[in-house]
Amino acid sequence: MPKKGLIIVNTGNGKGKTTAALGLAFRMLGHKNKKVAIVQFIKGSWKYGELESAKRFSDALEIQVMGRGFTYKSEDFSKDVAVAKEAWQRAKDVIAANEHDMVILDELTYLITLNMIPEAEIIEALMNKPEQMHVVVTGRGATEKLIDLADLVTEMKEIKHPYKSGIKAQRGVEF
Amino acid sequence: MPKKGLIIVNTGNGKGKTTAALGLAFRMLGHKNKKVAIVQFIKGSWKYGELESAKRFSDALEIQVMGRGFTYKSEDFSKDVAVAKEAWQRAKDVIAANEHDMVILDELTYLITLNMIPEAEIIEALMNKPEQMHVVVTGRGATEKLIDLADLVTEMKEIKHPYKSGIKAQRGVEF
Repeated sequence: MPKKGLIIVNTGNGKGKTTAALGLAFRMLGHKNKKVAIVQFIKGSWKYGELESAKRFSDALEIQVMGRGFTYKSEDFSKDVAVAKEAWQRAKDVIAANEHDMVILDELTYLITLNMIPEAEIIEALMNKPEQMHVVVTGRGATEKLIDLADLVTEMKEIKHPYKSGIKAQRGVEF
Repeated sequence: MPKKGLIIVNTGNGKGKTTAALGLAFRMLGHKNKKVAIVQFIKGSWKYGELESAKRFSDALEIQVMGRGFTYKSEDFSKDVAVAKEAWQRAKDVIAANEHDMVILDELTYLITLNMIPEAEIIEALMNKPEQMHVVVTGRGATEKLIDLADLVTEMKEIKHPYKSGIKAQRGVEF
């Protein structure tokens, strides 16, 4: 019997949701013949440093940066919904293609919380993922149904943040 | 004025403390001429997959796996303390050498919580780190003084864990 792939959710208001997913990708890629796909739903969520590092894994890591992506504060919601729908279709295609050992759906939760894609549709797609595939979902505000479905859920909770004490974003840490 | 390096703490009972630190390392290493050192205080904390992936960065990433390391459940505490002291000395040397842009002290908190190294000594070493160096500390039970000193603190909180529902550890995800 093939091993069951996990559904992993990194949520919460703190740092490290995407970074930990990236760490999981690199952990997976250390194993021979393992392939990872990352679908990025929000523009700029993956930073310059990560994208450069990822090039060292270009044989096994595929990153789909979705068009312009949508942003947290948009001026054209209907356009954003169209972009989100296209990104979600791409994500479903990547999952269905079953060519990766791990698929990271970075910031997917916003598609639900911003009412861009029906929650039921997302839950269904995750439920029907290929048996052995690990799927990692990141983003704030993971819904109850998503948490119910997941095997491993971690809340990244902000205890202290440097911006609040007036320190600026820095190369290599924040981007 | 040089930018101030951050002290970053990933704590809590959940997954992702070390994995997010690893993600930060890879983010940093995507930038030209940036160097990262990892001091691992607990044996086996960094997994096979990560160590293999790290080889792709051997020009810029140095991992110091400390001797046998000490384990959570030890049979010889005094021996463990000796190992911890040696590891801590190595960590202090790495910080003082000032050859890295980021130093990750993985599972350092246990040295404090297990009373292996005086908290004051650790706090002092972190306070006196080179100005521009980022230091990332991981581990459960970060103490109040460590949190006070840090610029960025995230608590990784376990919401749901697969082992509790009887799923076994899996290659590429857990190791």
